[in-house]
Amino acid sequence: MADYIESLQKLSEQFGRLQGVGRKSAMRMAFSVLEMEESAVEEFARALIEAKQLIHECPICGNLTDKEECSVCSDLSRDRGLICVVEDVKAVMSIEKVREFKGVYHVLHGVISPINGITPDKIRFRELIERAGDGSVREVIIATNPTPDGEVTAGYISKYLKPLGVKVTRLAYGVPVGSDLEYADEVTLGRAIEGRRDV
Amino acid sequence: MADYIESLQKLSEQFGRLQGVGRKSAMRMAFSVLEMEESAVEEFARALIEAKQLIHECPICGNLTDKEECSVCSDLSRDRGLICVVEDVKAVMSIEKVREFKGVYHVLHGVISPINGITPDKIRFRELIERAGDGSVREVIIATNPTPDGEVTAGYISKYLKPLGVKVTRLAYGVPVGSDLEYADEVTLGRAIEGRRDV
Repeated sequence: MADYIESLQKLSEQFGRLQGVGRKSAMRMAFSVLEMEESAVEEFARALIEAKQLIHECPICGNLTDKEECSVCSDLSRDRGLICVVEDVKAVMSIEKVREFKGVYHVLHGVISPINGITPDKIRFRELIERAGDGSVREVIIATNPTPDGEVTAGYISKYLKPLGVKVTRLAYGVPVGSDLEYADEVTLGRAIEGRRDV
Repeated sequence: MADYIESLQKLSEQFGRLQGVGRKSAMRMAFSVLEMEESAVEEFARALIEAKQLIHECPICGNLTDKEECSVCSDLSRDRGLICVVEDVKAVMSIEKVREFKGVYHVLHGVISPINGITPDKIRFRELIERAGDGSVREVIIATNPTPDGEVTAGYISKYLKPLGVKVTRLAYGVPVGSDLEYADEVTLGRAIEGRRDV
């Protein structure tokens, strides 16, 4: 039936393009929209456009923001001598939730993965070296995911930063190996920050 | 973090309002949007607005459509003497998928449920009686869900239609095809025995 209601089908396809949304869920979401007030649907459409237009990478750390600099970089109380290196913005969100880390971030937007053709120049690696090597940074905590690629990336970063006199640490293996930071619970993540070690 | 990216938070809340979407999924969807091309996001926003503006109830059967009449009612090959009564549009979609039913539909948009204060005048009951009683309808198949409220509604409809000389039938109850008798509940099994047929 829905195949014959063109505009419903189109909307369902749009939901189906989102990560992790299957065909049945997409159709259920499209039906949900029909049950909303027209003004609410317009608000939804506006939120889509606005998020896409306003959100960009922070020029300092690569985190997402809809301001000039991200909320962490523009917070004067954060310790600029302590940089936490993460793979993506979701990891920033996870660590921020713990409210334990008082430094700033550096989002790589990926990890080095020779098998997938991702070399250091394809991620924000050079920016990290420049940032961490300017003399004001005491310590870099590498919080890439505990996966083989994450480990390789951590090792690579460490090799470049140590000669610059920067202390390099790695999140403790409190986080289960092979998982994704996004799904780590807050206690585990808190312990992992507490127990970080030299690499 | 996302709490501080206002436009991302807003978008995530919009997704979270959809039926069956939790907080984490909503945030993942919002991130998906950021990864889309700007033109694709605009298309998504347009699909939302268009679906809401164009889709309405078919004036004949109550099914959804973005045309004047729904695709079933406007299909001249469908048998107008045979009406299948369903609770909602999703049921129409399910039955259409089978490609076995050649009649038309009547969507009640609910079931009679005294406990929830849903009386016959709150669903499209009067419209059904008018439609089925105009002399051109041979049979009405009641396909409300096999729940207590669905049963009450079926009985109520039947009581009104039979005096009008319309044949009233109900979907057969029984064990689902491909299932195991061991797992069938007693009521279903009881109905299946009751409704047994010659082979």
